[in-house]
Amino acid sequence: MSVRAKALYTFQSENKEEISIQENEELVIFDENSVDGWLQGENSRGERGLFPASYVHIIRNRSGSNLTDHSLSSPGSSPGKDLSYINTTSTALPSDDDDDWDDWDETSTVVEDEDPRRGANGHSQSPYSNPNVHYRAKPYMERQDSMSSNRKGSMVGRNLNRFSSFVRSGVEAFILGDVPMMAKIAESYSIEMGPRGPQWKENPQPFTCSVEDPTKQTKFKGIKTYISYRVTPSHTARPVYRRYKHFDWLYNRLLHKFTVISVPHLPEKQATGRFEEDFIEKRKRRLILWMDHMTSHPVLSQYEGFEHFLMCGDDKQWKLGKRRAEKDEMVGAHFMLTFQIPNEHQDLQDVEERIDSFKVFAKKMDDSVMQLTHVASELVRKHLGGFRKEFQRLGNAFQSISQSFLLDPPYSSDALSNAISHTGRTYENIGEMFAEQPKYDLFHMLDKLSLYQGLLSNFPDIIHLQKGAFAKVKESQRMSDEGKMDQEEANGIRKRCRTVGFALQAEMNHFHQRREVDFKEMMQAYLRQQIAFYQRVGQQLERTLRMYDSL
Amino acid sequence: MSVRAKALYTFQSENKEEISIQENEELVIFDENSVDGWLQGENSRGERGLFPASYVHIIRNRSGSNLTDHSLSSPGSSPGKDLSYINTTSTALPSDDDDDWDDWDETSTVVEDEDPRRGANGHSQSPYSNPNVHYRAKPYMERQDSMSSNRKGSMVGRNLNRFSSFVRSGVEAFILGDVPMMAKIAESYSIEMGPRGPQWKENPQPFTCSVEDPTKQTKFKGIKTYISYRVTPSHTARPVYRRYKHFDWLYNRLLHKFTVISVPHLPEKQATGRFEEDFIEKRKRRLILWMDHMTSHPVLSQYEGFEHFLMCGDDKQWKLGKRRAEKDEMVGAHFMLTFQIPNEHQDLQDVEERIDSFKVFAKKMDDSVMQLTHVASELVRKHLGGFRKEFQRLGNAFQSISQSFLLDPPYSSDALSNAISHTGRTYENIGEMFAEQPKYDLFHMLDKLSLYQGLLSNFPDIIHLQKGAFAKVKESQRMSDEGKMDQEEANGIRKRCRTVGFALQAEMNHFHQRREVDFKEMMQAYLRQQIAFYQRVGQQLERTLRMYDSL
Repeated sequence: MSVRAKALYTFQSENKEEISIQENEELVIFDENSVDGWLQGENSRGERGLFPASYVHIIRNRSGSNLTDHSLSSPGSSPGKDLSYINTTSTALPSDDDDDWDDWDETSTVVEDEDPRRGANGHSQSPYSNPNVHYRAKPYMERQDSMSSNRKGSMVGRNLNRFSSFVRSGVEAFILGDVPMMAKIAESYSIEMGPRGPQWKENPQPFTCSVEDPTKQTKFKGIKTYISYRVTPSHTARPVYRRYKHFDWLYNRLLHKFTVISVPHLPEKQATGRFEEDFIEKRKRRLILWMDHMTSHPVLSQYEGFEHFLMCGDDKQWKLGKRRAEKDEMVGAHFMLTFQIPNEHQDLQDVEERIDSFKVFAKKMDDSVMQLTHVASELVRKHLGGFRKEFQRLGNAFQSISQSFLLDPPYSSDALSNAISHTGRTYENIGEMFAEQPKYDLFHMLDKLSLYQGLLSNFPDIIHLQKGAFAKVKESQRMSDEGKMDQEEANGIRKRCRTVGFALQAEMNHFHQRREVDFKEMMQAYLRQQIAFYQRVGQQLERTLRMYDSL
Repeated sequence: MSVRAKALYTFQSENKEEISIQENEELVIFDENSVDGWLQGENSRGERGLFPASYVHIIRNRSGSNLTDHSLSSPGSSPGKDLSYINTTSTALPSDDDDDWDDWDETSTVVEDEDPRRGANGHSQSPYSNPNVHYRAKPYMERQDSMSSNRKGSMVGRNLNRFSSFVRSGVEAFILGDVPMMAKIAESYSIEMGPRGPQWKENPQPFTCSVEDPTKQTKFKGIKTYISYRVTPSHTARPVYRRYKHFDWLYNRLLHKFTVISVPHLPEKQATGRFEEDFIEKRKRRLILWMDHMTSHPVLSQYEGFEHFLMCGDDKQWKLGKRRAEKDEMVGAHFMLTFQIPNEHQDLQDVEERIDSFKVFAKKMDDSVMQLTHVASELVRKHLGGFRKEFQRLGNAFQSISQSFLLDPPYSSDALSNAISHTGRTYENIGEMFAEQPKYDLFHMLDKLSLYQGLLSNFPDIIHLQKGAFAKVKESQRMSDEGKMDQEEANGIRKRCRTVGFALQAEMNHFHQRREVDFKEMMQAYLRQQIAFYQRVGQQLERTLRMYDSL
């Protein structure tokens, strides 16, 4: 039975099966039960298709309350902001894979992780979908405002806004000294002074890890289907097999634990077409980039849960390791206790300026990465559409000329006609080469840009952590000056703020290092493929030209 | 004062300043006085611009007759069917050049030539604009019907349709023996048997002729402006200077005289933008092709009027030579008397089949030339628009990335930023290269296709001449069999029909020979320029790639 609903937020469709909906638009829903967080329905323009269940209220006329926030009962996956450039053609709804948790580990203690940051940029589940907190972030909009009510009180106390990332992450508690030092901390991450300021100390056992061979697997006699990847770390050289949901489990652990670190986003979830070749290929490429970023990060690469993910090949051990990771206490605020920082004095004012400068950079880089993503996506579309079509039309027209030349037999000029026909085929072929080319260049560029969109979108919240800490330092110093606080307590706050500052600078430093390597590599790879492309086209045309020599 | 008018025919705008009008559409005309055959006005969709005066009736409410056929008073130039691909940007109306005849030769005896074929395909003046014949051809539509009333009578007599090309050209009169053999015929063109049937005997003094250096000239103290071309025949090596209107005078002489020969069309007239560089360049290129075709033709190249055009450098001599050409008696029907044909017997049935086969070929070639013209014109537009834009956008996006990298000074990575910025400029440059490329390849292809559109559009009428002659032969033979005609008279008709058949076959043969040469050359030139283009792009990218090596 179809029911009426109202759009809470504007949603832009990104795949063929999806439809766009406008905030406040009235919708008809064909089936109230969402599948994988998606509902099927019709918008006010008569378009039919899928949209995220969490974006709509279902309107119930019979009950007293006529709005039910569907998002509370269904943690739908809100789509990321990067452009999906692969057309999916299947319209069947998926029945399995990304979101089912019932096969390996039915007794999982963590069904939905609370995510301290993820979601503010619209990626994956919303962090605000805790049913106890009747509140839902609008994608893209909350981030800049999350600190707005931070400076209200004149006391150095808890912030009133329980949803600011500063509070949620536990950094506030850490700064205020509410996180007790623990007797024994096994984990430790060092920050050292490098040529360009604080930096993470390298992983003493660096390694890489391949992600290969996505293979369709079935279980329960073919009822459930999923894709398994072969994951092989370089230091063990022993492959393990992982599904997207295992990556997703690990990702949620990372978000939970690693305050002040920009955790790379997983490739986006997708409602439809998950078993199509193009999608599988794209996800694989992006998992490889994700994995490269993980292994390159001095802190993330040393995480015990990551080690477990990379090495465990036994079902029972897997379960135990998962439990252990989920019970890890050194998460959020406690994670801040694991840092070893240098003794160097850093003026807090200087640190603040460094961070402001990074913030301006990150905003501009985010914008320009977005711009390049748009242009490259459009270019893909042109390659598959306009470019291909133009060259194929040219090829057809040459073919047609060639055919006409055969029609007056005494003058049929077979050789010329043959050469022109061959030229026609060459241009048809060039059209196909244009359509194929994005696989060799633009797709890889878009993959890397997508990774960077994710990384960059984490920084505003991370920078806010530092800003919150600064505010506490200033407040406590003022209170100490006014005799309202022990100088010792104020010194403690300042000291812990230094820790946050060092960590953030180390993370900024790491980001810049990776950025240089990644963008150099991205540009080189793109240019090499472009050169090879234009050379191939030229060679095809040269071979074709030679056919006219003998005429 | 603006007046109302009604469109007599549909006109498709081909330039920016022109507007399309539909048959029977009501129009507003801003000024009744046409300029160079064009009126300015507004159509029913509110579009304002130029359209041919000859396509509309002006509606006079005050007079008894409310329709004035504007075409009778103004022999407007109806646009050809080939696509104009150069955007003109000037909106000023031309004041001179193509159509003024008042400078060299005010006393010209021929103001408007009657053109036996030209116009049926919509090119240039209509052949039907003789004010004594209140009749006007619809462009594109009359050709196929011109013979429809040909076989009415049971007598071998004059056809009733005075507008059929068979009648107008004088070929009917020739076939029926109404053109008396003249005492002394100075002109003579031989047809000989070649390996592929009848062919024109080569010009014993073959030559070529260059058309160069279009130069803007003024006279009457700058009031009149025109373009002059340097025309240099190879056998004299002495340049003469000619304007478009002189070409046009010659062209009209050719049409008048050369029955059964496919006279190449002149590049089209254009109402606006005639002094713009692109237009001048395009006209020059097409005059060169026209000239090449003229000098390559064994009959046309030997025409006395052509010799006069190529050699006369003296104003007085020019006038005398023009008069002589205009008084030439060996035109139309009489031109048929100048042929020397071989003695070989050709079965009339076989000849008819040969011609039918050519007709099928010519139709298909005409269609495919049109198709290729469309595709190539569209490709030009894409080069100037879409292709250029896409690459420039890509370049801009790279520039933007490069700029963002400079914003966090400790990590500004100048060298990488510089290389990416250079990559951005390279792609902007590649965008410009795409926009420039049609000048090197597609324009030349379109020029040649336009020439062939003209040549091919002549053939239906020429073939109808032969068909008319066949019909007369069959009719006369039947009458002779029934005793209603002397066998001798019937034999005379058959003999003269042989002459027409030989001439047409020679012309077909010549067309095929040129076609082979021209299309081979066109394809080779296109491929060579395409190869050079893709190589240049590749080289630019290679130089750019090298900038990353030192990073």
